[in-house]
Amino acid sequence: MKVITIERKVLEKNDEIARQNRVLLEQHGILALNLVSSPGAGKTSIVERTLEHLGKDLKVGVIEGDVQTDFDAQRVARYKVPVIQIVTNGGCHLEARLVQDALSQMDLRGLDILIIENVGNLVCPANYDLGEAMKVVVLSTTEGDDKPLKYPSMFRNASVLLINKIDLLPYLNCNLAALKSNALQINPHLQVFETSCTTTSGIAEWCGWLKDRGARRS
Amino acid sequence: MKVITIERKVLEKNDEIARQNRVLLEQHGILALNLVSSPGAGKTSIVERTLEHLGKDLKVGVIEGDVQTDFDAQRVARYKVPVIQIVTNGGCHLEARLVQDALSQMDLRGLDILIIENVGNLVCPANYDLGEAMKVVVLSTTEGDDKPLKYPSMFRNASVLLINKIDLLPYLNCNLAALKSNALQINPHLQVFETSCTTTSGIAEWCGWLKDRGARRS
Repeated sequence: MKVITIERKVLEKNDEIARQNRVLLEQHGILALNLVSSPGAGKTSIVERTLEHLGKDLKVGVIEGDVQTDFDAQRVARYKVPVIQIVTNGGCHLEARLVQDALSQMDLRGLDILIIENVGNLVCPANYDLGEAMKVVVLSTTEGDDKPLKYPSMFRNASVLLINKIDLLPYLNCNLAALKSNALQINPHLQVFETSCTTTSGIAEWCGWLKDRGARRS
Repeated sequence: MKVITIERKVLEKNDEIARQNRVLLEQHGILALNLVSSPGAGKTSIVERTLEHLGKDLKVGVIEGDVQTDFDAQRVARYKVPVIQIVTNGGCHLEARLVQDALSQMDLRGLDILIIENVGNLVCPANYDLGEAMKVVVLSTTEGDDKPLKYPSMFRNASVLLINKIDLLPYLNCNLAALKSNALQINPHLQVFETSCTTTSGIAEWCGWLKDRGARRS
C-alpha cells in the first residue's frame, strides 16, 4: 500500500509539472505531440518524414527520449531543426520534469510544433502526462492486429493512431481491418492514419492533418 | 530518495521470492525460461513453434503474462499443455510473486521445461528476476539493428537472443550482421539463434539447443 501511495504522489507531482509545461507551450502557440510506441515501431522515421514534409511551412522542434544513446537525436539533427536529447539511463518513460528541463534549453520562439519522441514502451508512458496537446501512438503492422486490446491504456489515452509499415502487409499475418476495429473499440475517438516511412504512403495525409492543427494562430 | 529506497525494497522482496521459485523449480528438475521482448516481436509464436517441435520429447508448461486479455493463453492451450494466464491489469512486467501464485496452481510433476512469457516490454522486465534459469530475449528484425544498444539492460541480462522474423529481412532496412554485433557488444556471452515462426527456419536449432538443456537428468 505504501508503494501505491507514493506512486500516486509521483503522478500528482508529474501532473503539476506537466500543467506548467502545457501553459508554457500554449503561451508560445506551440502544438506539442507526445509520440509513443513499442521499440522499433518507427517513431524516429515518422519524425524524419514529418520534418521533410512540413519543414518548409512550419518550424518544428524535437525532443528525443531514449533509455540509452543519442542515435535518434543524431538522425533528427540532420534536418537542421532544434533537437534536445534526453537519456533516461534505464528509465522506462519520459516524465514532465525531464521535458521541463529540455524546454528550458530550447529556443521556443517561433516554433509551431514540438514533437516529443518518448522511450519505446507501449505500457509505461501511457500514464505520464508531459504537457502535450495530444498523444500520437505509432503501431507497426509487424506487431500484429491484437495489440490495441492487449495494451489498451496507450490507445485509450491517445488522440491519433499511426498504423505504420503498411508496405509490409503483404508479407505479414496482420489483418488491417481487425487492427483498426480493435483500436476503435478501445477508443472510438482515435484519428487513424496508415503510413509507410519507406514508400511515404500516408505521410501527406498525416502531415496535412497536423498542419491544419499546428499552423500558428498568431 | 524515498522512492528509490522503496523501489530497492520492492526489488529485494522480489529477489527473495524469485529465490524461492528457483528452489522449487530446481527441486522438480524444471528448466524455466523467462521470455522477454517488445510487444509483437513474436514471443507467443516462438512458444507455439517450440511446443510443436519439443512436445513429443519433453513435457512443457507455459505461464502467460499480459497487461490485458487471455489471447495468448488461448493460443497456447490449443497445444494441450498446462498453461496459466497472469493478467497484470496495467502492470508493465511480471514479478516473482505473480509467478509464485501461478506455480501454486500448476502441476509441476513431470514437467521438463517451463516457459514464462513476460509482458511485451523491452525495458521494465529486465530488472525483475522471476526465478528462471535464463532470460531469453526475442528481437524482431522489424525493430531495427540498433535496439541492443538502445535498450541494453535486457540484452545484458539475457542468456539467449532469438532474432525473429528473419523471413522479412529482404523487405527491411535492417543489417543482420550489425544487429548481432551490437548485441554481442552489450553481452558477448549471448547464445544467438536466427528464427522465423512463419517459415520455421532456425526453430530446429533453437529447440535442439533447448532440448539438450531441458532433458530431465532424473
